[in-house]
Amino acid sequence: MTREIIVYGLGSMGRRIARLALERGYTIAGAIDLDPAKVGQPLRRVLGLPAGQGDTAVSADAAKVLGAARQTVVLQATSSFLAQVAEPIERCLAQGHDVISIAEEMTFPAAACRETAERLDRVAVQNGVRLLGTGVNPGFAMDMLVLALTVPCGRVDHIRVTRTNDLSDFGPTVLTGQGVGLTPDAFRDAVADGRVVGHVGFEQSVALIARHLGWQIERVEETRAPIVSSVARASDHMTIEAGQVAGCLHRMTAFAGGREVLHLEHPQQIRPDLDGQATSDRIVITGDQPIDMVIAPEIGGGAGTAAAAVNAIEYLACAAPGLVHLTDLPINSPRVLTA
Amino acid sequence: MTREIIVYGLGSMGRRIARLALERGYTIAGAIDLDPAKVGQPLRRVLGLPAGQGDTAVSADAAKVLGAARQTVVLQATSSFLAQVAEPIERCLAQGHDVISIAEEMTFPAAACRETAERLDRVAVQNGVRLLGTGVNPGFAMDMLVLALTVPCGRVDHIRVTRTNDLSDFGPTVLTGQGVGLTPDAFRDAVADGRVVGHVGFEQSVALIARHLGWQIERVEETRAPIVSSVARASDHMTIEAGQVAGCLHRMTAFAGGREVLHLEHPQQIRPDLDGQATSDRIVITGDQPIDMVIAPEIGGGAGTAAAAVNAIEYLACAAPGLVHLTDLPINSPRVLTA
Repeated sequence: MTREIIVYGLGSMGRRIARLALERGYTIAGAIDLDPAKVGQPLRRVLGLPAGQGDTAVSADAAKVLGAARQTVVLQATSSFLAQVAEPIERCLAQGHDVISIAEEMTFPAAACRETAERLDRVAVQNGVRLLGTGVNPGFAMDMLVLALTVPCGRVDHIRVTRTNDLSDFGPTVLTGQGVGLTPDAFRDAVADGRVVGHVGFEQSVALIARHLGWQIERVEETRAPIVSSVARASDHMTIEAGQVAGCLHRMTAFAGGREVLHLEHPQQIRPDLDGQATSDRIVITGDQPIDMVIAPEIGGGAGTAAAAVNAIEYLACAAPGLVHLTDLPINSPRVLTA
Repeated sequence: MTREIIVYGLGSMGRRIARLALERGYTIAGAIDLDPAKVGQPLRRVLGLPAGQGDTAVSADAAKVLGAARQTVVLQATSSFLAQVAEPIERCLAQGHDVISIAEEMTFPAAACRETAERLDRVAVQNGVRLLGTGVNPGFAMDMLVLALTVPCGRVDHIRVTRTNDLSDFGPTVLTGQGVGLTPDAFRDAVADGRVVGHVGFEQSVALIARHLGWQIERVEETRAPIVSSVARASDHMTIEAGQVAGCLHRMTAFAGGREVLHLEHPQQIRPDLDGQATSDRIVITGDQPIDMVIAPEIGGGAGTAAAAVNAIEYLACAAPGLVHLTDLPINSPRVLTA
């Protein structure tokens, strides 16, 4: 079992991952980040932890950190998009390290770009290492948990997943990407020109589910609608008036065999409670075993993604070298390390 | 991928498994049952299906059926208890067949008898085949689904699982084992002398969860209490008066590190609705990611167990020869067979 890891990226999520990995008994052999405020600092200070033995200094020199350590698992947390993480991931693989990435598109990279996914798979195979993408969404709430619920189903006719969450913890970058604070008209313009993206990862959830169930998806439909607030709402980072946009209701529907088989719906907004909306994860499966599951409040995305990444370390070795998908592995539970 | 299976046991569950396997495109190469009313009959007639091509006749001669087919998967459904299924399972393994059993104790046979589990493992390894136990409970509702929900958890402090179901579909054998129709005093006597057993499988659920989370269970506590009805209740098979026992509230609590870590609670009764109780599966996880999950109504046990068994066929080949546990495998979703 691997006990040495490298953390690549020390933004909000990278720091959560690093703190959890230390709590769980892993040794952090290297920490990579480009932020001048962090470079050269002891990692534990950057993590807000008291100084400790065997601490490493944050470095901006990825090649040096990756070259100094041998056969670790790199936990990579820098961006949502395959195009931005492919090069740093490839560098890790080429240096003989396994990689666990929380980039949303990495949970099923071929759904973002088949060529890049194939190249990463090839590099991993050539170097005898493994590459996995994970997280809460995509990676759990709208795909792996859905698949877990199909175990007692003999036939699945349709799946509907709704994740209603609260964006209040997030800062301006995330809120802008969801159109928070816009007028409904401005929201539609921002969707049209790509400033409002909604959720990143529907394609990956559809692909994970379809691959595991053996579904041949023929097409998908996607909509992004403004969640117009009927009341004033305020989070730490943003205040909106009644009639303004509180967030984005992003939906994707997938079709197979000429009919709808999967509907994913993800309303993301600030303070849904102020407008009478409770947060939850809901999964409804129609078939020979009807299942209606609710988790309320919803699974925490930040803590959950850090946990999913750290939990995966113990299971990665189950897979053959190459690009690994979560559906190839046993359930990635938090395994207590024993001496 | 294996497309040929043998069904060993054609009771209520074995017939459900056989019907689902046919629906799902598998070929049934042999069917074994001792019931004189079934022996010699075409399988499809026993299953209540119209006659079809390539049908097999039910046989009481297990050795002959197992010897005639090569390298199939045997779906075994004859009893809940390891002591009763070990011998027929061993015979299947020795003939070179993989085995999927729905015997409750087979989901973690070492929790019932370590020696027998080790012997079955040895025979499977020697013959290069795999042996797996599965079902809804144990096997899913109170263990594998619990583990699936721990994926976004960095630290699990405590797990509480409550499965509230309705026994109205079951006949006198099952109802007697739950004490339905007794007085509260007679129920306590029946627990004491072993006539009321409650649920079979808590030890297996505890073992599956503990093994996957790396918990060292120190001891368990177990109680069986009468569910005394405040109203008259009637199912197709049994009628009770107010004050009589409607079923058994069976609980098991497991301790690790000197404290309670897992509480399983399974009230099984006829017509809980008549006494104002809704049926459901509920899982509450306490730790750094609090999760409160409800599936209402509860997952259907009969259909679910048949599905779990048939779904497992496609995943068994992922494991090395020997005794396999569900925690070793990818999620056993219902995979659509492709040509």
